[in-house]
Amino acid sequence: MLQIRAAQSGDVSTIHALIRELAEYENEAASAQATEEDLLRDGFGEQARFHCLLAEWEGKAAGLALYFFNYSTWKGRLGIFLDDLFVRPEFRGRGIGKALLVEVARIAVAHNCGRCEWLVLDWNTPAIDFYESLGARRMQQWVPVRVEGEALLQLARQR
Amino acid sequence: MLQIRAAQSGDVSTIHALIRELAEYENEAASAQATEEDLLRDGFGEQARFHCLLAEWEGKAAGLALYFFNYSTWKGRLGIFLDDLFVRPEFRGRGIGKALLVEVARIAVAHNCGRCEWLVLDWNTPAIDFYESLGARRMQQWVPVRVEGEALLQLARQR
Repeated sequence: MLQIRAAQSGDVSTIHALIRELAEYENEAASAQATEEDLLRDGFGEQARFHCLLAEWEGKAAGLALYFFNYSTWKGRLGIFLDDLFVRPEFRGRGIGKALLVEVARIAVAHNCGRCEWLVLDWNTPAIDFYESLGARRMQQWVPVRVEGEALLQLARQR
Repeated sequence: MLQIRAAQSGDVSTIHALIRELAEYENEAASAQATEEDLLRDGFGEQARFHCLLAEWEGKAAGLALYFFNYSTWKGRLGIFLDDLFVRPEFRGRGIGKALLVEVARIAVAHNCGRCEWLVLDWNTPAIDFYESLGARRMQQWVPVRVEGEALLQLARQR
């Protein structure tokens, strides 16, 4: 019933739709500005900037895990950063999210990565419980910090 | 007095020392396990996994900014993740940390990145104030989650 496979360039419109649905779930619909062209260029060229697994349930797109490799200067090893994990609401409760995470963990181990990491919204208790049940732990001392948009341009102009 | 330059392979022992000093400052000395060989292999080959800027004050190594590119599926653009930013205590108060961050921001803009991001320890108030003074903002709703070591191997073995 469930098939997990690496996404191909022909899957870009499905990936785009899933990313937008995830942003809506996170109350951030307006933040999902990437176009299909962006995703095609950055995910499927010679120098892919991300990788994507698609979960299909009886042939229908049910969810995705989108990740890229990062680096840990403490471990001196590659890691995986999971940027997006999403299962469409109508396909939940079938173990699809877990199967996607397990597959990402396998890819991490196959690439000798020291860890997989991602971000979770602090109000998303079901997700937090789910991740912890799979052995993940929250790095509660650490807070993400970001500079973007006009603030980034301003910072770059400083001396 | 201050020079900022891209690190070369001959700087690996300096980089290694700075990373260890940063880990000590973060009360995580035991976590800094990367060897000089790891850093040489992963930072200076054909397929560099990270990039590093060194700050020198009158020729002495004063600090570093170590970063790599990541990706935002919301923006459909590259970003920069700043993994390490460190200025040795005896060189603080001279604007070196700011100069490193400005240089990283310039690299981000030059690569058409949508943002720069990093993590800060929630008890590190001087760092938080410093980042906010430069236009960065904390993503306080988001919590980093990590699976590593034996937990990662176990996850990869699940079905």
